[in-house]
This record gives sequence, structure tokens and C-alpha cells, in this order.
Amino acid sequence: MEDNSNKQPSRRRFIRQTALTGTGIILAKPLHLLAETGYSELVSPNIKSRGYAGTDVQGKLTPWAFERRAVGDNDILIEIKYSGICHSDIHTIKGHWGEQQYPQVPGHEVAGIVTATGKNVTQFKVGDKAGVGCMVSSCMKCDSCKNGEEHHCETTGMVGTYGTPEASSPTGITQGGYSNNIVVTEHFAIKIPADIDLSYAAPLLCAGITTYSPLIKAKFKKGDKIGIVGIGGLGHMAIKLAVSKGAEVYAFTTSDSKRADILSFGAKEVIVVKNAADLKPWFGKLDYMISTVPYAYDISNYISCVKPYGSFTQVGQPINGELTINNFNMIFNRVNFNGSLIGGIPETQEIMDYCAANKIYPKIQIIKAEEINSAWDRVVNKEARYRYVIDASTI
Amino acid sequence: MEDNSNKQPSRRRFIRQTALTGTGIILAKPLHLLAETGYSELVSPNIKSRGYAGTDVQGKLTPWAFERRAVGDNDILIEIKYSGICHSDIHTIKGHWGEQQYPQVPGHEVAGIVTATGKNVTQFKVGDKAGVGCMVSSCMKCDSCKNGEEHHCETTGMVGTYGTPEASSPTGITQGGYSNNIVVTEHFAIKIPADIDLSYAAPLLCAGITTYSPLIKAKFKKGDKIGIVGIGGLGHMAIKLAVSKGAEVYAFTTSDSKRADILSFGAKEVIVVKNAADLKPWFGKLDYMISTVPYAYDISNYISCVKPYGSFTQVGQPINGELTINNFNMIFNRVNFNGSLIGGIPETQEIMDYCAANKIYPKIQIIKAEEINSAWDRVVNKEARYRYVIDASTI
Repeated sequence: MEDNSNKQPSRRRFIRQTALTGTGIILAKPLHLLAETGYSELVSPNIKSRGYAGTDVQGKLTPWAFERRAVGDNDILIEIKYSGICHSDIHTIKGHWGEQQYPQVPGHEVAGIVTATGKNVTQFKVGDKAGVGCMVSSCMKCDSCKNGEEHHCETTGMVGTYGTPEASSPTGITQGGYSNNIVVTEHFAIKIPADIDLSYAAPLLCAGITTYSPLIKAKFKKGDKIGIVGIGGLGHMAIKLAVSKGAEVYAFTTSDSKRADILSFGAKEVIVVKNAADLKPWFGKLDYMISTVPYAYDISNYISCVKPYGSFTQVGQPINGELTINNFNMIFNRVNFNGSLIGGIPETQEIMDYCAANKIYPKIQIIKAEEINSAWDRVVNKEARYRYVIDASTI
Repeated sequence: MEDNSNKQPSRRRFIRQTALTGTGIILAKPLHLLAETGYSELVSPNIKSRGYAGTDVQGKLTPWAFERRAVGDNDILIEIKYSGICHSDIHTIKGHWGEQQYPQVPGHEVAGIVTATGKNVTQFKVGDKAGVGCMVSSCMKCDSCKNGEEHHCETTGMVGTYGTPEASSPTGITQGGYSNNIVVTEHFAIKIPADIDLSYAAPLLCAGITTYSPLIKAKFKKGDKIGIVGIGGLGHMAIKLAVSKGAEVYAFTTSDSKRADILSFGAKEVIVVKNAADLKPWFGKLDYMISTVPYAYDISNYISCVKPYGSFTQVGQPINGELTINNFNMIFNRVNFNGSLIGGIPETQEIMDYCAANKIYPKIQIIKAEEINSAWDRVVNKEARYRYVIDASTI
């Protein structure tokens, strides 16, 4: 029952109850009610947190006080300064990707300052800049984990930064970054270089790595023509990253109003797509393509824009993950379609260092916590320009 | 108007009418009504044919007398001996892949004997064995055509063996192989070696090449684990071909009754799939996979049976081509999904020669023309074992 050690209202009460029942499992309940009374302050080593949580599929976030696990020997405590808003937060809380446990604090683009470290921690010290991306744990024993692909952990699977059932979390699930602090095993924290602003660093932890990882895997050559579909938080980073690596970038968007911005990101051409016919001139023209579109869409015609035997990577995740592909397009276009999930911890560190060194920054809009709900609406309405970042001091 | 030269009821009438109207286009009408009167016998060089044609989306085939174009300078006339039944014939005639013109004679696995040759023909002589697969024409000028990928013709697109609007066809569309003869440009005819029976040769022209082409492109190594999904006409050939090239083949079928046959084809293991859970043990286990399933199905779980960064090729074409893929599977399985369309003429010749030399024959059931409709029902009901081949002498 050691995994529940952070969930108990007090050790004394734990001992008393287990003495009576022979098991502590009945205590595995959210602790936040006790936290609200202040009682746990006296007896629990858990970390008190404030966050903005979803409470049902309506997806309206409200302030919530809760507890995180105590800082373990391998953990660091981060005081969050900035937290990016990702479309995944919206999909998750609204149940678009499956049933959720509530209250749940979303957020997996987390940047802040280390305020405490466990005794075994070697990579961070108090005062360091640190970030947390889309995962906070994995088995660390399987081949994938050992090879720096923790997101493809072969045993337990990765533990997501929010919403994943996890024994050490006092609320029963992990709670994310729309919050004032976070506790994380040091292995899953990213070092943020001194010379990048934390507000810029935050979006690199999902929008950045999610597009960087497949771009690197695509092994494109300088001058290769790369198409980016969907120019929001992820898409605009994909443009900047691909351009920085020497690609000739073609941006596909449904928003004509983004044209000037997109050109400023370094894209060679903007294709405003109103219907399938707008894609026809591009059939077979691009070396590689990434789509960030987070809804079902007319994907087959986009895939056909890649040259025969090239690849198309879908990183946006539609509702329930479902995408309808027309195999008539596929047998003629001869393109390889694949998906890509964030990136491992070493690669996330790599993009952080790369963007800091090369001054590749997301275009952000800093908002107060009370603006989260309206920002979500604007994300869904394609009005973000291009990443909302929550100033965590307002939470 | 030269393209219409085979459509005219008579040259005299053509000249008279063009003299009056200044255009011959008003004559571009099906000729078979004339053929039925016997009038064209006297004045037209067109070839009289008998076939089994679909007349509407009900897909019941009935005998039909029609005309094919005259044997042109680059054409050969083949007396058809055997014609394979492909699930594509059923989908096409029933309108599953788009609206059709009727009457339409399906059939694109055609094997017979050359009975006439045009004056420029060099590769065939009367008495030779010859076959026709899924296409009968293309531009022959674009890079794809010049490189032996006529099925990916970049200008006109390939002209399918049946159902494609085509100027030289007296009925306005090409007419396929459920017939007693066929006229085809020699370039699109396949030489059938003397030592392979025509009834075995026929199914190689679609079922064979459609699975052979992606298998060759997959560049698998000896001992690689290859999964074949859907063990019908195409799937059973895929097993035999992959085994012959040194693969360890895993066959996925929903029909337990096929088990013994599948093992006799050389598969190492038969996986009878009743539900998604049956696939779980195979996740990430195979080097490459081909699916021949011609309907929408739970494709994502099959794709997940391939190792990360491997490939999965869908050659079966579902209704309207639509396949719903779950991108959650795709981001975790990291598999490349692609489609594949038959193969070019040189590659079709290659598999014909390869199968003849290595005695790789399809497992066939020869039927009479009057059994076509019931055979179609059995194909849809997964009762074919494994390719119905029509004895064209019964048409």
C-alpha cells in the first residue's frame, strides 16, 4: 500500500484504520476536502496547489484548491510561472478523447522555477528554470524508456501530465499545469536555459516538441518542400522549426487573416484552402507534410499533396481520434501516412536548447487565469495568434 | 475526330454526315444496336463480342452481344479462354466505387490465345498465349508511363479494362473480360509463358500483381515476418508470393474454415480474428503487412500489428474507398500506412514469368458463365476458395 502513502489524511488515522480493516485502500480518496479545511497542513507532507479545473464535459474551468504529492527523493517542486493552452486540453476536458475524471486541471506546457528538490535530485537546484511537458512518469525499465522514448513506454505506458490515474496523486489522477505549482520526478523535467523567457519556453513543451520530433525523423534535406497544414499553436512552430532547418515551407490554412503572420514566420507560400479544389494544384508537389488539424477533415486530399513515396504525418488528434481516409487517393498518391506523438525527454530537451540557442520563439498572447475560458473558445474558433499562455501568478 | 474512327457505322455515312455538319461528333454513339441488326457486319470492321454484362446497380449479369473496336495497327485480338472473378468487378458494377455506365462487362483477369494482330505488332503472333490485366491504355508519354508505371499515368490516367469512358470503344466505355474476346494495344497485353495453364495465368493479372507489387516494394528480407489480412483471391496469392520470397507469413482471416488451406499455402501461422482482442498479442510483432479486405473494417488494430516504423499496405478497396483510421493507434504504433494500386505492365510481366517459372499457381474453381451471379454471391459471402475463374467457352 506504499503507493497510497500520499493520499492519507494523516499517518495516525491511516494506522488506526488499517489496524481495523487490514487494508488502506479504503482511504484512496481525493484529499482536497481536507486540504480546504487546512487540516492537512498540519499533518500531511502533500503540496497545496491552486489550479483551474474542469468539472465536467461542459469544459468550463473554475478555480480549485487541491493537493499534489509530497516532494519525493527524486522529485522537484516547480513554482509555475507560465502555462500554455493546447487544443489537447480542450479535447481532454470535454471528453472528446474518452471519459475523464473530474475535477481535472489541464495544462502540459509548464514553465517555472524550482523551489524544492528531493535528496536524490542531481540535475536541478532551487532557483533553476524548469519545465514540464506532456508526461510526468513511465516505467524507465523497458527498451523504449531506456532509449529516451518514454512516451512509448512498453509496460505501463507514459503517465500524462494530467488526467492519468496515478497512485501517487492525492486526487487519484495527475493534475496539470493550469496551476501555481507542480511536483515531478526530475527525469521528466526539462532544463530551461537562462536566456529564454519562460513564457516562450512553455509552448515548446508540447507545440514545439510535437512538431519538432516528426520533422527531425523526416530527415529532410535543405530546400525540400515541406507542407504544414493547420497554422495554430503547433503549426506556427512547425513553420519556424522547418524554416530554421532549411526547408522551403508551404503553409495550408483556412484563415486568410493569418497570411501576413505566416509569411513573417518564414513560410515561402500561404495556401488558403476553402475547398478541395484549392489543393489540386499541389498534388504530388511536396516532399513531406505535417498536419496539426485537431478535427476530422478532408485529409486524403492533403495527403495527395505529397510526392509519391513521401510521408505525411498527422499530429493533430481529432475527436475520438477518428479520421476517414479515402483509399482511392492513397492507392494513387502512394504516400505514407503516419501519426506522431510528442517526443521523448531527451528530444524535448534538445528542442528547448535548440530554440533557446537559435532564438526560435513561439508567437504568444499572455492571458490572466480568469480569461482561460474565453481563450479556449477562441482556440476552437481559430482565433488564437498563435499560443495563449497563462500568467500563473494570476491563478 | 480520329479517335472516333471506330465508332462510325460506316465510313461512307461518316463522310456524308461530316460534309453536312462539319463535325463527326454527333456520331459518337454506341454501336451495339447496329451490331444486333447485323448491319455492321457488312460495313464495320468492329469486332463482335459476347459477354456477361451488368445493367444496373443490382449487379445481376446477363448475356450481352456488343462490339469492340476493330483491330488497329498496334492491337491484338485475343480469344479469351479464362477470366477471373475479382471483388472489384462486384464493387464496380454495383456502383460501390462511383456511378457506372451500363451495360458494362466486367473482368480484368483475362487469359487467352491471340487470333489476330495489327500490322505494327511485334511482340505477339497468332496462336500465342496472352493476357490482359486491369488496364488497356495510358498516354505512354509521361514519366510514369515511360518508367513502366502506366497505372500512374500522369496525363490521362490509366484506362481501366472495363467501365472507363474511351473514344475507341464502340459502346463508349471499355468492356472487360467476362467475354469471348478482347482487343488491346499490344503494349498492354501480357505474354503468358507456354508452361502455365491459362486458367492459372488469369488471376495473376490482378490478384497476383496487386499483391506482388507492394511485396516487392517492401524490400523485405528473408525471414521477415509478414502479415496478410483477408485470405481470398488476393490474400492467398500474397501468402504464396511472400513465402516464395522467403518471408515468414502470418495470415489473418475471419474464416476458421480456411485454416488448413492457408497452412498448405505456406503460412507459418493462421490467426482467426473474431474481435479486436484477438489482435492485441500481435501488436508490434510484424515487419510488414498487406490487407486485401475490400470493405471498411477495424483497420487501426491491424495496423498496430506492425513494428514501429514499419509499413502496412491496404490494397483492398472498400465502398467509396472510405476507411476510418484511429489516429490514437497511429501515434502510438508509429506505422506507415499506404495504399497500392495493381502494378505497371513490366512488373505484371515479371510476376507472370516468375509464377510460371516457379509454379506458383492460384487455387482456383472453374465455373460456367451461367454460374457467374451465384459465384459473385459466394465471393461476397467469403465462400470463394480462392478464385473463381470463368471458362469463357461457356459464354
